Amino acid sequence: MKNIVAYDSTLRDGAQAQGISFTVEDKLKIVSRLDRLGIKYIEAGNPGSNPKDLEFFERVQKLKLNNAKIIAFGSTRKVNLSVQEDANVKSLLTAGTSAVTIFGKSWDFHVTDILKTSLDENISMIYDTISFFKAKGKEVVFDAEHFFDGYKANPEYAMKTLETAFNAGADSLCLCDTNGGAFPQEIFDITSLVVGTFKCQIGIHCHNDNGMAVANSIMAIQAGAVQVQGTMNGYGERCGNANLCTIIPNVQLKLEYECIPRENVSFLTQTARYVSEIANIIHDERAPYVGRFAFAHKAGMHADAVNKNSIAYEHIEPEIVGNERTFLMSEVAGRSAVLHIINQVDESITKDSPETKQILEKMKELEHEGYQYEGAESSFELVIRKLLGKYQSFFDLREFKVIVNEPSVDDVNSSAMVKIKVDGEDEISAADGDGPVNALDGAIRRALERFYPNLSEMKLTDYKVRVLDSRSATAAKVRVLIESTDGSEVWTTIGVSTDIIDASWKALVDSIEYKLIKDKENNS
Amino acid sequence: MKNIVAYDSTLRDGAQAQGISFTVEDKLKIVSRLDRLGIKYIEAGNPGSNPKDLEFFERVQKLKLNNAKIIAFGSTRKVNLSVQEDANVKSLLTAGTSAVTIFGKSWDFHVTDILKTSLDENISMIYDTISFFKAKGKEVVFDAEHFFDGYKANPEYAMKTLETAFNAGADSLCLCDTNGGAFPQEIFDITSLVVGTFKCQIGIHCHNDNGMAVANSIMAIQAGAVQVQGTMNGYGERCGNANLCTIIPNVQLKLEYECIPRENVSFLTQTARYVSEIANIIHDERAPYVGRFAFAHKAGMHADAVNKNSIAYEHIEPEIVGNERTFLMSEVAGRSAVLHIINQVDESITKDSPETKQILEKMKELEHEGYQYEGAESSFELVIRKLLGKYQSFFDLREFKVIVNEPSVDDVNSSAMVKIKVDGEDEISAADGDGPVNALDGAIRRALERFYPNLSEMKLTDYKVRVLDSRSATAAKVRVLIESTDGSEVWTTIGVSTDIIDASWKALVDSIEYKLIKDKENNS
Repeated sequence: MKNIVAYDSTLRDGAQAQGISFTVEDKLKIVSRLDRLGIKYIEAGNPGSNPKDLEFFERVQKLKLNNAKIIAFGSTRKVNLSVQEDANVKSLLTAGTSAVTIFGKSWDFHVTDILKTSLDENISMIYDTISFFKAKGKEVVFDAEHFFDGYKANPEYAMKTLETAFNAGADSLCLCDTNGGAFPQEIFDITSLVVGTFKCQIGIHCHNDNGMAVANSIMAIQAGAVQVQGTMNGYGERCGNANLCTIIPNVQLKLEYECIPRENVSFLTQTARYVSEIANIIHDERAPYVGRFAFAHKAGMHADAVNKNSIAYEHIEPEIVGNERTFLMSEVAGRSAVLHIINQVDESITKDSPETKQILEKMKELEHEGYQYEGAESSFELVIRKLLGKYQSFFDLREFKVIVNEPSVDDVNSSAMVKIKVDGEDEISAADGDGPVNALDGAIRRALERFYPNLSEMKLTDYKVRVLDSRSATAAKVRVLIESTDGSEVWTTIGVSTDIIDASWKALVDSIEYKLIKDKENNS
Repeated sequence: MKNIVAYDSTLRDGAQAQGISFTVEDKLKIVSRLDRLGIKYIEAGNPGSNPKDLEFFERVQKLKLNNAKIIAFGSTRKVNLSVQEDANVKSLLTAGTSAVTIFGKSWDFHVTDILKTSLDENISMIYDTISFFKAKGKEVVFDAEHFFDGYKANPEYAMKTLETAFNAGADSLCLCDTNGGAFPQEIFDITSLVVGTFKCQIGIHCHNDNGMAVANSIMAIQAGAVQVQGTMNGYGERCGNANLCTIIPNVQLKLEYECIPRENVSFLTQTARYVSEIANIIHDERAPYVGRFAFAHKAGMHADAVNKNSIAYEHIEPEIVGNERTFLMSEVAGRSAVLHIINQVDESITKDSPETKQILEKMKELEHEGYQYEGAESSFELVIRKLLGKYQSFFDLREFKVIVNEPSVDDVNSSAMVKIKVDGEDEISAADGDGPVNALDGAIRRALERFYPNLSEMKLTDYKVRVLDSRSATAAKVRVLIESTDGSEVWTTIGVSTDIIDASWKALVDSIEYKLIKDKENNS
């Protein structure tokens, strides 16, 4: 089976994305996960560019990696400077990596108009820098910046930059579509020509400015490229880099080349989500293969057909990449999509039962108010229980009051008081917090734990807020999602209100009730 | 110049996306905007599928459209039913459109295993349905569902379905990659073959499950397809449909075919964002051509080069598609990116001034706390003013208190009290609201309007909340963005805190101060 080298630049080119800023700890965590996934090359920055990167390269040497080789990244030497004098070149050596990637200009316009030097000097810069690192015993990747634009403008010169890198000893030549404007067919044609010319590994590095970075990478591989550069989730400047989370399964499952060890393909979804978490970027729910909705079926007819045979509306089985099939609950969802949740409460109910119709109508009504049960199935289960008479109330709220004071004292600016009634017994309690929702959460738990000690097992693990109609500004409706766990299960609940405290309260109460109902049913 | 028909299915296939549910009003608004953009075909649903669509088709007939033709969409007749007996077929006529799109099966597996009928019956279903609509004088598009999968499984049968539709009088044959798993090269090869076989318009309809829907559409066009189906922003089930906001400029600016009137290309970005607003989906900031970051430069070196010559790191000029170039402010940003904002406060400061360094350091520090000035330039301007001594405080906060009570009275559950000092004079005021931030906003404005009557011109137009580290659950840091306007200018400010009230307060105060400073400088 043909091998394609997956070359990840999340920590370098990915860090150019808006909103991304990795700490040294973040970078080390990502390296470990990428190594576990089976990525072969991890490009991680330049120790000379900032002290964070220097610390990273020192610490990464202590990590035991099974698959990945760490690569330091830098440019060819500066104009009219010797390699020995160039601080950036020297700093690359301090990374202590066995391989380096050197980027250089291959578009004549960039040489003359941006670097403002001669075409010959650029050729010397490429030659000097690569020979320097080869003499130091490094593996060298040459990134030919703007190669496709360069080739279209001046094919002789673009090819001459590659030839220079090759003659200087580069182990691989990577063709970059730096501006992301190239088209699949031209990528194929130009890559084929390069592959036919140089007897070394040819790589491809695409950007997504025309929305075709993945396809362009695939076309280059079909033309003979054997190294594919990209980033996790396609993070990168402007419209992003080629998305390795799409390219890897495309290559592995469709072209049937080996890109990561076969047994690791099922780690893909969790790795992609892990990187999103570390980057603190909302994971793209529509992302191919690894998005939460990549295998989510909404149209009633599609959901029915997928139930019959998944190949009907799915290009691969979601489990292969560690993802899962879901049936979205929404007003256009067919009954079969909702039935799955109903049957968790009552197995005897069928698609045609009158209860199913009643539940769907209630759902439409709540969706109209701003609820969305896609992703908050536990709250939806409570709605179903209420309609089916399988719901039990564990407490009544009499009153709550939240007070926020500025200036704050010791960072604690909020306090909450909650009055509840449990089995005819009144309870009142209060708590402080570093925000009103935090205080309210503390107060309700304190009030309930006397009656339901098992609530101490439960903790909130995620809290999300979405403003529904942000044009109404501070009077807008907000939707709060709360994720909770008791160690053995994870559940998500929802609350909607014009008041964020009230929306949070609703989601909190659902979360507590869900836990209490589950525990009660498991014990009975 | 070759014409390519842009065929939009946002209102039909796009509405299958998770989280999208259009009202009749929404659909009519989108039709008007797509028409203004110059879209030729707008597929809008099936009047038989629900009463909302029926109302839509009645009302859309009264809209005066300059470019767009409205298309009703439905399936071939049901198995073993005559066309005349089929309620769905009849309901399509009630749409009153001059054109209909009929989708039918072209993959033998779907006929035998999902429809559970014979291959011959499916052929009759296609023939009967299309001839019926042709006899009624309609223009007919045949959507060959799963055409590429079908062709790969049984090429003779797949071609026979097209031939049947063609013989029944279909005006165009659209090849669908329904599961979104096809590859660019095979799309090209199969489309070329179809284009060579049938003397009618050939269309392409791709889904994005392998991340290549745009490239696949482009390859089909290069193979001779002249109708391209897709949706605005790529909205659609699972990973979405082919994104017309990417395809249109790719076709128009790169292939140089006419897809929409040339003078309308600059409406693209605003149309894309308008549809996101109506759909209530956060606009994809990384989207090619129309995303907020599509032309945003972060790396210092890139920003410098683009300043010299935009072609250096941009594949097109952003203005062509109605977008704009931005320089992101962030810790890796070069000084030249931040300098633009600094010079709005003080023109004399240069890249190398000590103040620039000081401002960059302060920015890094604030970014570390969770601030992000990309998109909240007005708050950043205030930071700069404070450091440069060009800031003036208009009031001092002495204290505020916010109280949230449940149960609420008349939907008003929050009240806020604010004490401030202006020029040595104390003022205290209070306001109710349907949420704590709304109450606080009311109270501070009431306190200040006596001193600064021009604040009455200002209103908040957008309020966004982002949970920064959602794993800390209710104690997590939140980032609040507030957009304000006074009719002549729009500005955005930011606040970060573990307490949403406090974060909102900070953003509110910045917004008010920005307005007061601007007005003072304009009047002096």
